[in-house]
Amino acid sequence: MKVKVGVSNRHVHFSKEDFKLLFGDSDLPVLKELSQNGEFASSLVVDIKTDKNILKNVRLIGPFRDKTQVEISITDAYFLGLKPPVRMSKNFDGALDVILVNGDKELLCKNSCIIANRHIHINSEKQDEYGLYDGDEVSVLVSGDRGGRLDKVLVKAKDNYNLELHLDMDEANAMGLKNGDEVEVIKGE
Amino acid sequence: MKVKVGVSNRHVHFSKEDFKLLFGDSDLPVLKELSQNGEFASSLVVDIKTDKNILKNVRLIGPFRDKTQVEISITDAYFLGLKPPVRMSKNFDGALDVILVNGDKELLCKNSCIIANRHIHINSEKQDEYGLYDGDEVSVLVSGDRGGRLDKVLVKAKDNYNLELHLDMDEANAMGLKNGDEVEVIKGE
Repeated sequence: MKVKVGVSNRHVHFSKEDFKLLFGDSDLPVLKELSQNGEFASSLVVDIKTDKNILKNVRLIGPFRDKTQVEISITDAYFLGLKPPVRMSKNFDGALDVILVNGDKELLCKNSCIIANRHIHINSEKQDEYGLYDGDEVSVLVSGDRGGRLDKVLVKAKDNYNLELHLDMDEANAMGLKNGDEVEVIKGE
Repeated sequence: MKVKVGVSNRHVHFSKEDFKLLFGDSDLPVLKELSQNGEFASSLVVDIKTDKNILKNVRLIGPFRDKTQVEISITDAYFLGLKPPVRMSKNFDGALDVILVNGDKELLCKNSCIIANRHIHINSEKQDEYGLYDGDEVSVLVSGDRGGRLDKVLVKAKDNYNLELHLDMDEANAMGLKNGDEVEVIKGE
């Protein structure tokens, strides 16, 4: 089975409460819809600040979530001097504290920063059709100059999801992939 | 068979002529020896400049070569707005022009910039022992949170080489690898 690649750059999902503290009482402005229904890139950005460095202009992704989640790559993590754990979205086990900055406002977001675990989104109603089920761990085969196989790709099913493999910039660049490329899903190694 | 990983950050191998033009008539100062006999990191750095951006403090690697070679990652390439080809060292087919900068001196290095093809160094005399031969294309298996398989790993044999897999930062970060980690070499997929 083939699946299209969506490459995620570093980004932040804000809780409404944390957003208010940094941006005041406004809405989260929509820049463009993303491939997963309801998700959007905002026109707003924040900086991530550590003792070592500042990573500027990190995109906010909407809508608001219950808890603020900061997703960076390992390349970003070296730049910031951090070692966040590799986690699925909304799993904050061992997630790191980081300071988010908007202009002269700063907010310490505790237990928020992770490296995203690579994953495939599928529509819940198509699990039988695809033979992929929520929680499955699969691999994907990549062809080309920088081909290979990525293991430990987690399947996430939800009723408003579209079929897509989400990788971060490190993973996409390592395998020579870009948005919209197709890779093959295999079960087992 | 197991092989240790050596992670290469962006770097420049200079020709003596190009070096003179940017740094004058001095030697290339040694900062530290690298894992491959005779290769060393210099204390000197240059900036890589394009119309889009400047990548600061890129390390010089010695000794001098016949032709200047600039090796960057795809992450760096996006930052600079370039699309260099994936090539083995010293293969300049389609390599890009970049401007190298030292202080107020600039040098256009034509046909110099590549993305390094992942490769394994082996000692020529140990080819039979390892069952790996110069020019072989093999794969490596990576375990861990970000495990998988990297294909199209080229074997390079030379009499002063030590056994080592060379990856760039994108590849190492995507697979959760760092300097000195071990991976398994497999022939065929």
